[in-house]
Amino acid sequence: MPAATSIGGDGRRWWWRLHVTVMATCLATRACSGATTLHYKWVVENIFWSPDGQQNMVMAINGGFPGPNITARVGDTIEVELSNNLNTEGVVIHWHGIRQFATPWSDGTASVSQCVINPGQTFPYNFKVDKAGTYFYHGHYGMQREAGLYGSLIVEEGDEGQKEPFQYDGEFSLLLSDWWHQTVYQQEVGLSSDPFQWINEPQSLLINGRGQYNCSLASRYNSSAALPECSLGGGEQWAPNVLKVLPNKTYRLRIASTTSLASLNLAIGDHNVTVVEADGNYVQPFSTTDVDIYSGETYSVLFTTNQNPYENYWISVGVRGRLPQTPQALALVNYLPNHASKFPVSPPPVTPQWDDYNRSKAFSNKIQGLEGTTPPPPADYDRRIMLLNTQNTIDGLTVWAINNVSLSFPPTPYLGALKYGIKAAFDQTPPPDTFPDWYDIMSPPANPNATTGNAIYTLDFNSTVDVVLQNANTLQPNDSEIHPWHMHGHNFWVLGYGDGKFQRGDEEAFEKTGRRPPLKNTAVIFPFGWTALRFVADNPGAWPFHCHIEPHLHMGMGVVIAEGVDLLGDVPKETLSCGLTGMMFSSGNGEKEGHN
Amino acid sequence: MPAATSIGGDGRRWWWRLHVTVMATCLATRACSGATTLHYKWVVENIFWSPDGQQNMVMAINGGFPGPNITARVGDTIEVELSNNLNTEGVVIHWHGIRQFATPWSDGTASVSQCVINPGQTFPYNFKVDKAGTYFYHGHYGMQREAGLYGSLIVEEGDEGQKEPFQYDGEFSLLLSDWWHQTVYQQEVGLSSDPFQWINEPQSLLINGRGQYNCSLASRYNSSAALPECSLGGGEQWAPNVLKVLPNKTYRLRIASTTSLASLNLAIGDHNVTVVEADGNYVQPFSTTDVDIYSGETYSVLFTTNQNPYENYWISVGVRGRLPQTPQALALVNYLPNHASKFPVSPPPVTPQWDDYNRSKAFSNKIQGLEGTTPPPPADYDRRIMLLNTQNTIDGLTVWAINNVSLSFPPTPYLGALKYGIKAAFDQTPPPDTFPDWYDIMSPPANPNATTGNAIYTLDFNSTVDVVLQNANTLQPNDSEIHPWHMHGHNFWVLGYGDGKFQRGDEEAFEKTGRRPPLKNTAVIFPFGWTALRFVADNPGAWPFHCHIEPHLHMGMGVVIAEGVDLLGDVPKETLSCGLTGMMFSSGNGEKEGHN
Repeated sequence: MPAATSIGGDGRRWWWRLHVTVMATCLATRACSGATTLHYKWVVENIFWSPDGQQNMVMAINGGFPGPNITARVGDTIEVELSNNLNTEGVVIHWHGIRQFATPWSDGTASVSQCVINPGQTFPYNFKVDKAGTYFYHGHYGMQREAGLYGSLIVEEGDEGQKEPFQYDGEFSLLLSDWWHQTVYQQEVGLSSDPFQWINEPQSLLINGRGQYNCSLASRYNSSAALPECSLGGGEQWAPNVLKVLPNKTYRLRIASTTSLASLNLAIGDHNVTVVEADGNYVQPFSTTDVDIYSGETYSVLFTTNQNPYENYWISVGVRGRLPQTPQALALVNYLPNHASKFPVSPPPVTPQWDDYNRSKAFSNKIQGLEGTTPPPPADYDRRIMLLNTQNTIDGLTVWAINNVSLSFPPTPYLGALKYGIKAAFDQTPPPDTFPDWYDIMSPPANPNATTGNAIYTLDFNSTVDVVLQNANTLQPNDSEIHPWHMHGHNFWVLGYGDGKFQRGDEEAFEKTGRRPPLKNTAVIFPFGWTALRFVADNPGAWPFHCHIEPHLHMGMGVVIAEGVDLLGDVPKETLSCGLTGMMFSSGNGEKEGHN
Repeated sequence: MPAATSIGGDGRRWWWRLHVTVMATCLATRACSGATTLHYKWVVENIFWSPDGQQNMVMAINGGFPGPNITARVGDTIEVELSNNLNTEGVVIHWHGIRQFATPWSDGTASVSQCVINPGQTFPYNFKVDKAGTYFYHGHYGMQREAGLYGSLIVEEGDEGQKEPFQYDGEFSLLLSDWWHQTVYQQEVGLSSDPFQWINEPQSLLINGRGQYNCSLASRYNSSAALPECSLGGGEQWAPNVLKVLPNKTYRLRIASTTSLASLNLAIGDHNVTVVEADGNYVQPFSTTDVDIYSGETYSVLFTTNQNPYENYWISVGVRGRLPQTPQALALVNYLPNHASKFPVSPPPVTPQWDDYNRSKAFSNKIQGLEGTTPPPPADYDRRIMLLNTQNTIDGLTVWAINNVSLSFPPTPYLGALKYGIKAAFDQTPPPDTFPDWYDIMSPPANPNATTGNAIYTLDFNSTVDVVLQNANTLQPNDSEIHPWHMHGHNFWVLGYGDGKFQRGDEEAFEKTGRRPPLKNTAVIFPFGWTALRFVADNPGAWPFHCHIEPHLHMGMGVVIAEGVDLLGDVPKETLSCGLTGMMFSSGNGEKEGHN
């Protein structure tokens, strides 16, 4: 079986492996940061691949799946020349967790930061990574993330500045995803159909793009197993990840979830783990048997290989928060010099009960900021925005809405429209800052009708903003779902989670807990609950803030915020070649000199 | 069962049925042509539909499949505001057979006449129909035609000018297509994969978007039928077309083939037909039992309801030119007042043997121009271009090539690039006008390697050009395929068909036949044969000329011709918002005033 570090490279066409690292010249010894520019040429296209043993169409980069790993250091510049080799689809790539200070046009969000890259065209992403942590990248147009367009992005601390507040002997990266056999094109049609057709549960869970369908690696632990044991040579695209470790060492496991739908839980058989990082921010370490991870989140955990060194151990990843219909994904911790084919004595860890939300909340509340590495939140806020999350109907279609508005992305990206004052590009009436006091979050909406909209929340630059994400009952009685909300361009402090309807005064309870709010870029709202966030609007640009469940965003579950766009210089013209920004350059109606 | 005239309308959302006919004001009685402007608002999106009884994703217009029928009169202007409501795909629509004199930017071909219309955007097609005939429209980007993006376009003679050289009491339109259950996205990946994955034969043939899969309308004629008899209420999306006729009348049947692959043959049980029109040109009438029709062709035939009026009759459409693996499509000729449920006594006409090419050639040779309606070809040509059709490999992928060049469409459309002299938009070295004399068309290519290219054939304006399409052996021994070539922007005279390799001097045989070359826009080359065409390069613009088999064009089987672009006025800016033409307007690097 291949080592984890080679995952994703198998089958990639060699001539696409261009990866030029240009060392910056150190002008003065003291000033030399060692920062480099990492330059990549990537080509996106659909290919056939077997993520779980069944060949399907996958949206790939440079002929492989998942996309190439990027490992950079703080201060590095990443340049990705992204070429679109799809047949009829546009594409963009979002660098999830990278704040894009001063480069909001490189955020890679269709309709927000740029026009999509059309087939045959190339777009230069260019941005600096200024914060160590575990990140990833993914498509941010339609449901191209679910189609397979994602990969790992890791930023290590540089020679200078902050040091990691923990030590380890080696590390592994596990990028988690969920996988369907139906194409996303068909799923998108189902979501926009009357009657509504839900995407249903995934066929498989993938670890670094590898899963098993129609067979199980763990059937021998269960004499009544429904699935036959997998027969593997090790070279298969769907062969499991093998983490080769030495006994009595400490390893860092970087975990990122780019799932389209599933909330996950990860555990290592017979090993506890210590959580040390969340969403690119160090957290107060705590030991746990397992880690909940929602779509859009990343964690680093440490584990020590202090178990029987003559055995191997399973890593299991299972579904939480929805009634699971998908088998666990498995990877192997292979204590060297054991052979990887040595079957673990212990079965894979059992995933906690999917609807044990108290357990989930307890885990989320354990995540606290680490003193000395992350600042505490400002003591007060300048503006509070209440965002009610509801499921609604519009013209017979099922949607999600925020304060009764279902987000519909406009053809002209917000960033260019804001920068050049193209007011016709989107609705200029701001969306509501709150919802009616009388709204009953414990029942299906009394009036299920919502409206579509594309207005944005304009924030005062450098102001402190609180957002309370308020969950509610869906269209079905006694039903409320998990929604992990992800904010682009910012980290926020998670002030707290609560049950029921947020009441003024609940914020006073935050401080009483003595809990140090962690910085994150993604935070979950639990069923029938609320989550309170605080952030500083300090990043000039336009930024989506949305449920990271891809079909939910597709159904309108998001908002767009903007701040300080007037502080930006020119927006690169490559981001403006569509919609009303595309038209704004054409006043010469074609009679300009050609470029030869 | 529904009447043929209502086909395609079932299930269409009523609020999209906007069809405004604006009567032009007649300024003077004598000059009043009655010409009008037909204005349509169309929305393209993927929907679920059951073209053959199995629900699948279909690329639809205004919520229905096939797209709306357009019926216009000579001199009318057609305006279609085409909005793209797809999720991630661009779209264009080509008006097949309409020459687009003075409006080459409305030809609707991605990479040639315009930038694609991106999701959320609207493009105004605007063109005049100047020639009566049977036409259709379809997607011309990727394989969106096969995905279902097509409809009927009929142009009737106006009050003035030419009269139809035949008479009839009523008419029906039958738009023929082939249908696959696999998505075109997956098919496109297969075509670009190593190993090559062919799309295989269609699951069903459709008449006006209606076919039957997994059941047969005709199983009762065959006691050993493999398929059960279809059980139909009549309201199904896949219920067959019913042509309601009165006895002893003459009807015009307009037949158009928008198949992705299949060459077809149509026959009416117990009725002969008289061919009177081909590709929008009147032809010398001849009677026949059945009609061969290749992808991209249209015919009008007349038939007289002179059979037993107490019976109904089948129309059958079957595959020719490839080993059929698809059942016939059937429609019903319903002699009133019989009920449509009255089963025809005679079984559906049997489609002629698929590989009886002599029969096919005999049919094609019967198509002759009609004196008094179409001019004869110019006596001589100014330039002859020999186009060798070969199957090749490039980097392990299977392609089609013309004179060893496989066409790869560039991101900047040719029309804008030519008009504004953007030479970097495509290769400026012209492609070869011929192929080596020594090439052995009877064997697989000795060297299978071809190159990709995007250079074009620049023609002198108003020159007469001969094209000899030379077929050859594919990559498989003893194999050569049918290719129906379609030219945009022009009609050509089909000078003749021949077997084997075209020899100088073969053209002298044309006149000896006494055959009057017909005008067409699509002409087939038979296996191991050649077809000689003549046309006048009299239409300023850039025009694709390609095999109308959609996967073949996708694999590079086409060329682009251009003439007189300097004679055009400004090209509308909406066609230029991509590639290098998109960039050419942005020299102001964004610092222009916004449009409020």
